[in-house]
Amino acid sequence: MIRIAVDAMGGDVGPAVTLPASLAFLETHPEAALVLVGQSEVMAAHPLYARLQSHAHCQIVAASEVVTMDDPLEIALRRKKDSSMRVTMNQVKDGIAQAAVSGGNTGALMAIARYVLKTMDGIDRPAIASQLPNAAGGATTVLDLGANVDCTEDHLLQFAVMGSALVASISDNPTPSVGLLNIGEEAIKGSEIIKKAGKLLQSASNSGDINFYGNVEGNDIFKGTTDIVVCDGFVGNVALKTSEGLAHMIGNFIKAEFSRNILTKIAAIAAYPVLTAFKNRFDHRRYNGAALLGLRGLVFKSHGSADAFAFERALDRAYDAARNNLLERVRERIAHAAPLLVTEQAAPIIEPFGDVAPAVSSVAVASPVSTTEH
Amino acid sequence: MIRIAVDAMGGDVGPAVTLPASLAFLETHPEAALVLVGQSEVMAAHPLYARLQSHAHCQIVAASEVVTMDDPLEIALRRKKDSSMRVTMNQVKDGIAQAAVSGGNTGALMAIARYVLKTMDGIDRPAIASQLPNAAGGATTVLDLGANVDCTEDHLLQFAVMGSALVASISDNPTPSVGLLNIGEEAIKGSEIIKKAGKLLQSASNSGDINFYGNVEGNDIFKGTTDIVVCDGFVGNVALKTSEGLAHMIGNFIKAEFSRNILTKIAAIAAYPVLTAFKNRFDHRRYNGAALLGLRGLVFKSHGSADAFAFERALDRAYDAARNNLLERVRERIAHAAPLLVTEQAAPIIEPFGDVAPAVSSVAVASPVSTTEH
Repeated sequence: MIRIAVDAMGGDVGPAVTLPASLAFLETHPEAALVLVGQSEVMAAHPLYARLQSHAHCQIVAASEVVTMDDPLEIALRRKKDSSMRVTMNQVKDGIAQAAVSGGNTGALMAIARYVLKTMDGIDRPAIASQLPNAAGGATTVLDLGANVDCTEDHLLQFAVMGSALVASISDNPTPSVGLLNIGEEAIKGSEIIKKAGKLLQSASNSGDINFYGNVEGNDIFKGTTDIVVCDGFVGNVALKTSEGLAHMIGNFIKAEFSRNILTKIAAIAAYPVLTAFKNRFDHRRYNGAALLGLRGLVFKSHGSADAFAFERALDRAYDAARNNLLERVRERIAHAAPLLVTEQAAPIIEPFGDVAPAVSSVAVASPVSTTEH
Repeated sequence: MIRIAVDAMGGDVGPAVTLPASLAFLETHPEAALVLVGQSEVMAAHPLYARLQSHAHCQIVAASEVVTMDDPLEIALRRKKDSSMRVTMNQVKDGIAQAAVSGGNTGALMAIARYVLKTMDGIDRPAIASQLPNAAGGATTVLDLGANVDCTEDHLLQFAVMGSALVASISDNPTPSVGLLNIGEEAIKGSEIIKKAGKLLQSASNSGDINFYGNVEGNDIFKGTTDIVVCDGFVGNVALKTSEGLAHMIGNFIKAEFSRNILTKIAAIAAYPVLTAFKNRFDHRRYNGAALLGLRGLVFKSHGSADAFAFERALDRAYDAARNNLLERVRERIAHAAPLLVTEQAAPIIEPFGDVAPAVSSVAVASPVSTTEH
């Protein structure tokens, strides 16, 4: 039986979202199980707690502390060793759960995941991958979304390989196409690293490690030109948040214009089916659940402001990944691509009592999905 | 009298767009003048040519060649010395016109502008700046949008200073705010160069060179958190094109949904005022006309696929910049900020008969506005 560990305290409101989502998940997945990790007294105050506690497929594990959205990494790692986030990760490390889901602080989650689970052989830097809806009617998987800045061509190849494993495990396509995000299709364009990465990804395509399409531009993400778009975490994070900003502005504008007067309010009623279709198609909640790839365990990040519907999607995603053996797929693909990768010395694992300064700066994790998080 | 030089052959269709736009511009600006540069026989075939030719404020200058969208830089520079683009630039260099506008190949335009006009003292790399509509009801000026990759902190400060001059010259705000595009608000985040740039921009703010707000994230561009957002050209180009892709997808989706059946078509009629307001507010044509900053002359780039309405906006923008003395403002601000800048050796000017290879790679210009251009 596949079991998912849930950081019940993570996200902006904690159990008020994670508990209803967990119950809904268990009801739609009678073959799955959950481990809910959190502060007993806080969880117990929620009306659904009793039902979850008595559920045959739900186990409750106590954690005395909570990593807040504002906690610096060194506090999250060194001071809060009994945090719900850390204890959730321990469930995966100890083999009790096959994947972990948390809506907590992204930087702390990545740091704790790296410390507890360790990085996979052949991977220098774990990456964050998420899906964005595209005009082709599907979704484009983009990585990295902010876990890594100043990426080398080797990192970009690792992202391409891990992204391919992710998409292959959650779709019917065993050879998803990979685009390298650039500022022009011509080989002459782009930075030195992107040019080297283009050559390396082509070699990987020739050896069957990935299905490389070539360079793509920013607009190709939403066009759906390729199944996967690979980029430096700085660039990916800016692209994602810029898109969020634009979508937010457009959504607010449409809402304000339809509320302007009695005539536009009537028009809104007439346009209801269109507005509903619009809302459904671009509902960011449906795409909730970013994968942290390259660790020796499956970890998914929910948006901090996710509601129960969105959090349940992150649970679904983690469950699908575990069920389809994403971890083993990533491991196999990375091993196959190893001859192409001149692996650098893996970044030092953060020692909970050591000097965290260098590790902190090497885990310059930006929130992949939220601007309300720090 | 302020005179604008127009590359009448530039853009996807040339005179069919540039001639109607030029006539409309002259009609709404009786105090301004134009110099139309192009192939005589092609321009003469347009029905409006006779009116422009006989217009008191319009001068026609012949150029025998045209730089195409696909021309490599070396062809544009070395082989086509009588191109409409080059001759347009010569009008500015020779003091006949105070600004140039072209809808041609961005890479060629930047290379020719650098070669003919030269880079301003204190500027290492000219940048491309454009405006994007924001939720605050105005527009955010973003630079660089693709002229420069691998920017140093000095380049980012130059962009901040030039962007401030641009916004001050086209708005009522003498001290526009500047945000540094980053992946998080915390100082710990971002690449090494961004961290150094943050400190440098703060120093420039302390010395009154710019009004530095601090770090901003991708969503702040459309939120309108700052008047100006400064970034590496690779990042800016990706952000811009990703936004274009998303806007395009949303626009198409709304159109398709309202055309779905008779009921939704009726809804579209009811929603007409809202759809019109939406179209007007986010009409990218209104924002046409990107500034090439840091040259010893004013140059504006129109979108290659601009229609006459959009091209006229680029003419307006060039005229406003010339009228408000943008060139002198940039010069003064850069001179004032000079103590902060450790100017590197300016990139070599491309010699029309020399070896262009290094210069070509240093002008890795991506199209700032169009994905249909190469």
